[in-house]
Amino acid sequence: MFKVPDHQVAGHQACDGMIGPLVDDSGHFYKPLQSDERGSAEVAFYTSFSSNNKIPNHIRRFFPIFHGTQLIEASDGSGLHPHLVLQDIVSSCLNPSIMDIKIGSRTWYPEASEEYIQKCFKKDRESTSLALGFRISGLQVHGSKESGIWKPDKKLIKNFTAKDVRLVLRKFVSSNACADSGMDPDCSFASTVYGGSAGILAQLLELKKWFEDQTIFHFYSCSVLLVYDKESVSKGRSSSAEVKLVDFAHVVEGKGIIDHNFLGGLCSFIKFISEI
Amino acid sequence: MFKVPDHQVAGHQACDGMIGPLVDDSGHFYKPLQSDERGSAEVAFYTSFSSNNKIPNHIRRFFPIFHGTQLIEASDGSGLHPHLVLQDIVSSCLNPSIMDIKIGSRTWYPEASEEYIQKCFKKDRESTSLALGFRISGLQVHGSKESGIWKPDKKLIKNFTAKDVRLVLRKFVSSNACADSGMDPDCSFASTVYGGSAGILAQLLELKKWFEDQTIFHFYSCSVLLVYDKESVSKGRSSSAEVKLVDFAHVVEGKGIIDHNFLGGLCSFIKFISEI
Repeated sequence: MFKVPDHQVAGHQACDGMIGPLVDDSGHFYKPLQSDERGSAEVAFYTSFSSNNKIPNHIRRFFPIFHGTQLIEASDGSGLHPHLVLQDIVSSCLNPSIMDIKIGSRTWYPEASEEYIQKCFKKDRESTSLALGFRISGLQVHGSKESGIWKPDKKLIKNFTAKDVRLVLRKFVSSNACADSGMDPDCSFASTVYGGSAGILAQLLELKKWFEDQTIFHFYSCSVLLVYDKESVSKGRSSSAEVKLVDFAHVVEGKGIIDHNFLGGLCSFIKFISEI
Repeated sequence: MFKVPDHQVAGHQACDGMIGPLVDDSGHFYKPLQSDERGSAEVAFYTSFSSNNKIPNHIRRFFPIFHGTQLIEASDGSGLHPHLVLQDIVSSCLNPSIMDIKIGSRTWYPEASEEYIQKCFKKDRESTSLALGFRISGLQVHGSKESGIWKPDKKLIKNFTAKDVRLVLRKFVSSNACADSGMDPDCSFASTVYGGSAGILAQLLELKKWFEDQTIFHFYSCSVLLVYDKESVSKGRSSSAEVKLVDFAHVVEGKGIIDHNFLGGLCSFIKFISEI
């Protein structure tokens, strides 16, 4: 019934006796609640977001559908554990190419503990977060039959420079993306995936417009997930490219101020995408 | 010939034997070069900016006109000292109301020394910079004849909270602004100064559009100066409200990346203004 997802690119994964998310056949994604305050913070966010009538419908579609929480058998065999029940974003894709981008030059919030701030501050400085306003946290790319799947190692991703990021954003929409190829990415899916009225760029611009105005939430350490299905895109169906926000364990109240940290990073990411 | 400006609201001031800027009768503002690398960095910025043909003309008007550097007698009587010769922004105003807003939640840049980073980091956390993406660095407001000039003390300004900032942005365009009045600001100049097609909000939005695209410079610790002349505004001439960027001692190369730190702060400031 429940199984470990095939297509997870970032976050805690179910392996080596570690607890991780599960999926089922009906399109649900079960994310184990973290036992510290992060678990309850994420439930609190989804609950508050679901019931907030100030969120326009065209913005809701950028968030996974929330089906509450449920006690299910944990992936590590440790017994019943509470899970968030969410929409499985990639369930309809045969060969999903996925990229997880953590937005914001700063992943910590002023009210956090000094220890947490210092930990995040170090990571932000060591990654591209500080310079670019975002960092790639995970990715997998389905290339051609010959090149197969490209899913770089977490350590490699951690050391991405600004130059690497530019290249990876091109590889993400190329049919010849693979690990050690010196080949120039062909960007053959760029116009279908990034471009067009329903493409990723258009969706990001819609999201940006909301962030210029909304003062309800501040999304620290939150990711934008880009997903498209190679099969659909090869057939020219651009509508399969999707933008979703995920990871809300560090969302705090906006208190009437816009989320300038997220917005700045999002604008920088949009600029990178628009240059492809 | 040279004299100490009447209307300086922030920065190093010529008093108590300290070196400070001077003005003359022909509309020039003489800013003494700081002797450390900040002085040469600011000259380098003005020189590079003046000669860069990628800066559109409608953006140039947001910067003071640069007339080179000149050796003149320093304000503290210490002899000849090199000065930046700039446009005196308030020379045409009889009763200028001025606000200096340092933009960006972060006033330091990654390449700075650890000591400098820590100093700025502390200031950003202690002021509204971190939370709001900007902080007020100085201001003077011309109210009615009865209320006179309101020019709060630097120490008071340093301790402004988010709530204070909201109030001050309203007082800035009120005829009844004064120090300890419990009166509600009347915002009688809001529509002329902030609003309208040539008002401050329209100018800020134009600047924002440029920042969404430009990757030439990153403006750390730079201020937006808002200036209007009470006399002109009372007569309904909105065109006298001006936005200028000032203080470029910490501008660094953009290296193909947008200035997401400045842009985020600017968007937050725009949101504050638009709510008045």
